[in-house]
Amino acid sequence: MSVSERLAAIAAIGRDDARGGYSRHLLEPADLRLREWFRSTAQDLGLSVEVDGNGNLWAWWGEDRTGAVATGSHLDSVPGGGAYDGPLGVVSAFEAVAILRAEGWSPARPVVVCAFAEEEGSRFGMPCLGSRLMVGEIEPAEALRRADRDGTTLEQAWREAGLAVSSLGPDAGRLAALDVFVELHVEQGRDLEDRGLPLAVSSSILAHGRWRLSVHGEGNHAGSTPMAGRRDPVVAAAAAILAVRQVALERPAARGTVGRVSVTPNGTNVIASRVDAWLDIRGGSDAQVREQLDVTLELIRARVADEGCRLEVEEESFSSLVAFDEPLTRRVASTLGDLPAIPTGAGHDAGVLSAYLPCAMIFVRNPTGVSHAPEEAARDEDCEAGARALAAVLRELAGTPVR
Amino acid sequence: MSVSERLAAIAAIGRDDARGGYSRHLLEPADLRLREWFRSTAQDLGLSVEVDGNGNLWAWWGEDRTGAVATGSHLDSVPGGGAYDGPLGVVSAFEAVAILRAEGWSPARPVVVCAFAEEEGSRFGMPCLGSRLMVGEIEPAEALRRADRDGTTLEQAWREAGLAVSSLGPDAGRLAALDVFVELHVEQGRDLEDRGLPLAVSSSILAHGRWRLSVHGEGNHAGSTPMAGRRDPVVAAAAAILAVRQVALERPAARGTVGRVSVTPNGTNVIASRVDAWLDIRGGSDAQVREQLDVTLELIRARVADEGCRLEVEEESFSSLVAFDEPLTRRVASTLGDLPAIPTGAGHDAGVLSAYLPCAMIFVRNPTGVSHAPEEAARDEDCEAGARALAAVLRELAGTPVR
Repeated sequence: MSVSERLAAIAAIGRDDARGGYSRHLLEPADLRLREWFRSTAQDLGLSVEVDGNGNLWAWWGEDRTGAVATGSHLDSVPGGGAYDGPLGVVSAFEAVAILRAEGWSPARPVVVCAFAEEEGSRFGMPCLGSRLMVGEIEPAEALRRADRDGTTLEQAWREAGLAVSSLGPDAGRLAALDVFVELHVEQGRDLEDRGLPLAVSSSILAHGRWRLSVHGEGNHAGSTPMAGRRDPVVAAAAAILAVRQVALERPAARGTVGRVSVTPNGTNVIASRVDAWLDIRGGSDAQVREQLDVTLELIRARVADEGCRLEVEEESFSSLVAFDEPLTRRVASTLGDLPAIPTGAGHDAGVLSAYLPCAMIFVRNPTGVSHAPEEAARDEDCEAGARALAAVLRELAGTPVR
Repeated sequence: MSVSERLAAIAAIGRDDARGGYSRHLLEPADLRLREWFRSTAQDLGLSVEVDGNGNLWAWWGEDRTGAVATGSHLDSVPGGGAYDGPLGVVSAFEAVAILRAEGWSPARPVVVCAFAEEEGSRFGMPCLGSRLMVGEIEPAEALRRADRDGTTLEQAWREAGLAVSSLGPDAGRLAALDVFVELHVEQGRDLEDRGLPLAVSSSILAHGRWRLSVHGEGNHAGSTPMAGRRDPVVAAAAAILAVRQVALERPAARGTVGRVSVTPNGTNVIASRVDAWLDIRGGSDAQVREQLDVTLELIRARVADEGCRLEVEEESFSSLVAFDEPLTRRVASTLGDLPAIPTGAGHDAGVLSAYLPCAMIFVRNPTGVSHAPEEAARDEDCEAGARALAAVLRELAGTPVR
């Protein structure tokens, strides 16, 4: 098989006709089908499959459970996301195992293909949910309380999927079994396209926080209410969105985005009573993100007050700046012929795990540079090159036994 | 019975736990239950019930079908609306009939209590759908094509409710049978509260248009996409919303509102690809509304272009300024002891019908002044006074036979 053929096998799962692209969210039907696909693909390759207590999938090559070389990514998507963000890393990991098996090569230490739960945070608002639960960075009780857009809590979704709620949380034994983690991912930008290179390694991930801004105003009739004295949260939120843009533009390498907005009650002839807007900020250090947030919120508070509205701010997540393990990243890059190391603004499970074990990432060229949208792309030959590269890295990292 | 008791009978139907208040939309379960309530209430009062070809309900007192005095309002609500906007007019009409029957009074010409379909336009985006179809101001084919937020078309909803699609459209015979229409409605403002009066008649309705603004940008990753060069439709829409406010504030008695916004794909870590925002403009004349729209759109086009986005504008409805029939309005006002006549910014079925027959409105004091929101209010004693006033008006208007 090939990476392209493996991607084709899941191409029909979770298509979003309304938004375009894919909507594959944790434990919803598309995600359940992808989990089934993971299981059967692993079994076809002779790997033994486990679901851990946090909903992450593991497919083991080898009997031992120490000093493992882990590789994989995630299967979930943002709403209306592309075909590659996540699945390419899982599919390439399976393909790399297939390449090595076809060569008759056997690892001297265990190799494990993994798929982490809810990397995008699109259903329950907590990105890298599975990996952060595993390392103990999310309180299980807090995660269980989180509700999706329909009001279903993670606890309900967990139970409906037949998973044990009591097993959620830190998994020190599993973490200790992993020696390194290498995540392959489609590039989320045009750096490699501009350089004319199919692959790179990653040097770092920007610091990243998400906040929910709730603006409370006064609902009323759009026709009979004079303009003067209105307390319209849509107007206040609009001013807030422009403030987010302004503050981000003033800071080099900073990002500030509002991509999700919910208006209550959301009627054409109704002045709204409440707007929720989600703020996504990224920057070159934790302090830079905090500073950007503070300045942004100061502007927003003033504008919300001008409109006679009230603001609530809730931090949904904060991920510190990640610098990937330098020795491992150099070893991966040199195994593949001295790949360049590029930074990224996107979060990854490899970023979460890098605080606990050496992690590295391999990026595959994206000709459109677009990500989190249907236009996200990767050329077939680059995908195959990515799987061959990952096979070479596994040969290098898993070729020597645990000392 | 009383108006309060009749309102209590429907108080549990269509409650919206998420938004507060009521969400009662055409042919959805709550609306179907209200239609059942209309039928049984009419039957209890000895009225004979018809559903016309446009989904409007009619309860006739008397056998004749000419020179009728019509009274009523609508039963549907905006999303998360109040308890009075619409139902108070229907309930008061039934109570007025009950008062007159209890007095042993009989009309010399037919009296008919009516409830018009989808006055708010909250499901299919066409306000006063039932009355405008009846008078021929909406093309049946266009209405049938309209889809609700879930993609269900009016045609599908119509068929599912067992209604005949072929009967949609102008109903000249029914229109000819009506001599006058008097609609009682909760006031949508604080004018009566400020004057210390329980009731008024209406002089006029502001001109009113609704437009859908679709802003198309470029979806991408919120973390990996630099700020420079983004084409973010959320930012463009935010600037548009501020332009709507600015232009409305510059014009006396004008209204400009965005109360409904839909972001695609609506993910926290995703730069959106599209935003739809609905624009509601009202003013003292048709020309004033058109001028306000033109200036608003000019500003919006510039701001959308600044962001590298593309704008589409679709007119969803336009209702001309309504001046209610002066002789009828004077007659109603003097029957009730010289009520004041006040203008309103809210649209009504009486406004639609007033182009075809003499129409008048009676407003009942609203102590909060809030409308289209759960805080909408009316005191019990004012509601009862409204029903007694309507009974007096029916006695006056239906007391003489058709010449």
